[in-house]
Formats: sequence, structure tokens, C-alpha cells
Amino acid sequence: MGFQLIDVLSDRTDGAWHNTPRCILIACQRRLVSREDSRIAKLKDCQIARQSVLTARAFLCSIPRQGTKKREDPNVISEPNSGQMSARRVDTGRITLHVREQGRGPLMLFFHGITSNSAVFAPLMEQLSHRFRTVAVDQRGHGLSDKPETGYDADDYAADIAGLIRSLDAGPAILVGHSLGSRNSVTAAASYPDLVRSVVAIDFTPYIETEVFDALESRVNAGDQLFADAAAVKAYLAARYVNLPRAAIDIRAESGYRAVDGGLRPLASPTAMAQTARGLRRDLVPVYRAVSKPVLLVRGADSKLVSADALAKTSRLRPDLPVVVVPGADHYVNEIAPDITVKAITNFVDA
Amino acid sequence: MGFQLIDVLSDRTDGAWHNTPRCILIACQRRLVSREDSRIAKLKDCQIARQSVLTARAFLCSIPRQGTKKREDPNVISEPNSGQMSARRVDTGRITLHVREQGRGPLMLFFHGITSNSAVFAPLMEQLSHRFRTVAVDQRGHGLSDKPETGYDADDYAADIAGLIRSLDAGPAILVGHSLGSRNSVTAAASYPDLVRSVVAIDFTPYIETEVFDALESRVNAGDQLFADAAAVKAYLAARYVNLPRAAIDIRAESGYRAVDGGLRPLASPTAMAQTARGLRRDLVPVYRAVSKPVLLVRGADSKLVSADALAKTSRLRPDLPVVVVPGADHYVNEIAPDITVKAITNFVDA
Repeated sequence: MGFQLIDVLSDRTDGAWHNTPRCILIACQRRLVSREDSRIAKLKDCQIARQSVLTARAFLCSIPRQGTKKREDPNVISEPNSGQMSARRVDTGRITLHVREQGRGPLMLFFHGITSNSAVFAPLMEQLSHRFRTVAVDQRGHGLSDKPETGYDADDYAADIAGLIRSLDAGPAILVGHSLGSRNSVTAAASYPDLVRSVVAIDFTPYIETEVFDALESRVNAGDQLFADAAAVKAYLAARYVNLPRAAIDIRAESGYRAVDGGLRPLASPTAMAQTARGLRRDLVPVYRAVSKPVLLVRGADSKLVSADALAKTSRLRPDLPVVVVPGADHYVNEIAPDITVKAITNFVDA
Repeated sequence: MGFQLIDVLSDRTDGAWHNTPRCILIACQRRLVSREDSRIAKLKDCQIARQSVLTARAFLCSIPRQGTKKREDPNVISEPNSGQMSARRVDTGRITLHVREQGRGPLMLFFHGITSNSAVFAPLMEQLSHRFRTVAVDQRGHGLSDKPETGYDADDYAADIAGLIRSLDAGPAILVGHSLGSRNSVTAAASYPDLVRSVVAIDFTPYIETEVFDALESRVNAGDQLFADAAAVKAYLAARYVNLPRAAIDIRAESGYRAVDGGLRPLASPTAMAQTARGLRRDLVPVYRAVSKPVLLVRGADSKLVSADALAKTSRLRPDLPVVVVPGADHYVNEIAPDITVKAITNFVDA
């Protein structure tokens, strides 16, 4: 059944762990939650049993600890939150977004590419959370966030970013965006400069060729499938993202699908994806011309989305913007080369 | 006679300004000093009469104001110094360096190329001094700084930078270096990371080709001439730096030469230049591999010193370092394109 997340560890003799959802046990093994956490007991046989490891941890964190009297404001982190990742939903006033967060320090927000979700940034957050308050966002239509029927233009996504920063009350924020998230981050920086400190814009620029958008739109729409099981999801992802390491495929598989009758379907809304893909074609030149906050342009050296020519044209438009080209990476720069991506980010924001 | 800096404004009827050295009058016009400054009177017929405008202002600032009782520590700025440029000599303990400074804020140091001096950064400092404490340095052997007989390797220059930052007691500093100054700044960042916040490394990288160094060394040694007058200096500079705007040529001409019997000679020490040029050939790869502080690589798109190939190799060595390529600029990026250079600097340090 699906990911077999409802498997229990039948080989354990410790009764306390018998029947604990496998996803929580894996989360314990990965030190995402503590085995001593009293909240785990509450999870037995509950809906979390069908979810992925990262979602399980998010769900766990949403349950108050035993003995906790005070009701927590879901929009305020009341614990130090320096070490482990937590997750919650944030009501921005215009939309409720699901976020994962880790660490304390200056606010650094992460925005994923189309059809993806916030989980893909976990390897970056792990390295950056000792110095930054890292918050990765399921953008509208994606992951566990709200999925309105319409409203998937750049300005809609950018307004969400502004709303989130205001809700967190910790701006101006460093925005790290990949692909769709890059487009959205630069748009937010141009429209809401007071809320944004700087942008790391990964593999999305103006001047992307029409045929590249055509191919992207086909891939995006082809992702809306019913998959028989987790193996089928991983096989599909491995074929679609040919250069992604196994660990990155696993994160996408575990975080991006929900169990339905007959198998698994993407969390991302098909209608939202179709509208979003069309919106990506809008001319980005005016936004790049207008943005006054620092923007680091990051391109994968083997990217099929941002051609060398598109990057060169962008540099002619804005010669003052610094550029990093990551060798050995295609479009999925931060998932293929997290270490270089982290160093590029810190070289930029520490300067 | 030379720059005709000892000319006086004979066409003025105001007796108070009669016989005031022309260099000071020009400094007044450029708002580098105030016409109300009581110290100007002391300059009449003194040695400053033979010096350039920028040097005149430095000299002026070294004279206590009338009525000033307290003897000022020459290493401490006792005035706000937010608007105008001032100059002084700083004893670093190992060498005394002549610096020009302007503004308040985080410390931003500027290091010039071989044979040049701190005056070339005036246009950048003018734009940056409202937010930064900008300090441009005559490096050893250059300008009005000490010129020991030997000691012109990268490590000597880098130790001077460390000594200066310690003397100013305002580190860690942002280092902006051009050419020789770029090499020295990155070397200082690698050797004294606690004193350096970040480096803007303009048009000097590892992998510069041997024939490029050969040509550079020839040009450097050819600069040691006796020039009949200012016109001859400017003609020489215009031929050597073919793409430099007239204003930049004027700054170099006014700041880089001293009156001698028979004409004008460079302030830069010929023996120091010869040693420095040889030292530039040392392999920079270990330094670039080692440096852990953020470094922005800036190249002039038409540079004959840093080839596109040398930059590409440097990016392969350190793919995490951001790059800016300035269109329409040769090696002398900051003098040819000060506006883009300033924006590239602020995009880097504000991120």
C-alpha cells in the first residue's frame, strides 16, 4: 500500500514502539524527532500513518506536548528551534501556507520550483540553520499549502511572499528561490523592496526561449498521474530528473505525494500547475530591470532551462548582478550540488 | 613649470585669495575644502604650492585649525568626516602609509594597481562614503607612502593591509582591490581572515598567462621617466591607458607625480615597481584555494590582463565565488565604469 508507511516494526520486542507508524520510526532514525517525544504515542493508528517522513514530523510538531498548558500561537515559534526542523501552517491573511523551518538568526526563505515543495531544501537548511532562521515554503497550489482554483501569476506568488514575511514579522528576508521560486523571489524583491534584503535566484532568468517553455509545460502536465506505489513514483522521478542523486529523488517522492484510492497522486494541484506553467512565460525583463535589491544569479552549467545565451543576455541587461555558474549541475542546482549552492549563498550574504 | 600649480589667481580682486596656491583654489571649487577654512592662509607660498589638488587637501588637513588646542592623534579621526575627503599618514607599526578617507560606517579599504595610488578611487569613495568609512591606501612603494628598498612580495603587501586594519581598529574590513591591489586583498583575506569581512577582487586572478605578465612588466618599467610638464604626463597616460576617460587621466596625472629639477617624475619608486611586477607572477592558485572569506571576482569584458580563459579557470577552481563581468571596460574597470563598479560592490556587500 503506497509507501508502506503503515508498516510497523514487527521485529521489535519493545512494546512501546510496536505499532508506531514506520514514518515516525524513520523520522527518529534520522533524528528529525526524539524517541522520547511523548507526542509519538498519540500518532498510533492516526492519519499520519499514511504520510511521508517529513510530513509525519510536521504533524508531530503540531500536537502539543503532554503537560503543555499554554496554547501556542501557530504563527510564533515559542521554542528555541535551533536544531531540528519543524513545520506548521501560517495564515498570511491572503492564503495559508505550509512551511518547514529550522534554526535562528536572520530570516532566509526558500521557494521551490514548479510541482515541487519545501522539502527539497532540507539539505540546504541543515547546513544554514546554525546561523539563519531558515523557512522553506510550500507555495500556493503546491505541497500542503492552500490551492485556490485561480491566481497563479507572478504577482500572486510575490504577494504571498510579502504576506508571509509580514506574518513572520522578521524581515527584511533573504530569498532563495529555485526556478518558479526564483522568478517569484525576484518579482517580490522588485514589488516589495522594504521586505526583502536580497535574492539568490537559482536557474531562472529573463530571455528563456519559447521552445524551452514548451518542453517545460509538457513535462509539468505529464506529472499529473496516478502512481501504483512508491516504486512507481521513484521510477517516474528518476526518469524525469535524470541527474538527481538518489537521496534527492527520495525526498521528492516522500514529500510530494498523497495516498489516494488506487495509489499515489502528486500533492501539487494539476490546474494550479497548468496555470503556473503558462505564467512562467511572462516577460521578466521589466522585473529584472526594476529590481534594486542585490540578486545573485545562479545557473547550472548544464541547465537546459537557462541557456548560456539567456544568462549572457541577462548579464548584459544587469551587468552589476553577480553570477555563479555551478559545474556538473543541470537545472536542479541546489539538489544536485547542495554544498556549492550553500557556499555560493554564504559568499553572497556574508560579503 | 610642472602643473603650474604655483600659479595664483591674478584676476581676482579679493585680496584674501590673492596668492593662494591654485591647487587649493581648485580644491575649494571641487568642494574638497571650505573657503572659510582658516588653515588656507597658512598655505601661501609654502611647499604645498607645488603639489596636486588632492595632495594639497591632504596637506591642508594635516595643519591644526586656528584656535585648536588639543593635539590630534593622527591615527584617530576626531571629526565626523562624513562629507569631505581627508588624508593623513598612518603608522601601522611596520610601515607608514598615506591614506585618503571619507565617510563613516563599516570600514571599506581600497587598494590600487601597480604604479598607481589611492586617488584613483575618489569617484567610488564619493558614491560610497555616505554609508561606509572609505579609506583608500597608497600601498608601499607608491604615492606618498614609505618606499623601503626591498619587500614587495604579496606577503609584504598583505601584512601592510593587516597592520593598517589593526591600526584603524575598525575591522573586519571590506577590501576593494584593483589588479595588484586585488592580489594583495585576496592574499590578506587568506592570511588574516579575522581582519577581513570580504573582498572585491577587480581584474586580477590566478592563471594569468606568462606573456601577459611580460607585457605588463615592460609597461611598468617604461613608466619611470622624466616628464617635461603636465601635458607630457597626460599625453603619456592617455597613450598608456587608451580607454580611460579624461577625468580619470587627470586624477592620475595630478596625484601620481612630483616636481623635480627639470620636470615631473612618478611618485612610485622604480625599484619598488620592478620588484612588485616580478612578484605578481607568483602562482595565486594556493591563495584562491585557501581563501575562506567571500570574494567577488570582477573582470573587465575587454581586459587584456585577465583573459576570459583565466577567469573561466578561476571559476572552475572556485565555482562558489560570484563573478561580475563589466561590459565596455578593459583592465581599468573602476576608472572606466565607476557606476557599475559601485553597484557591483553594493550588490555584493548588501546581500
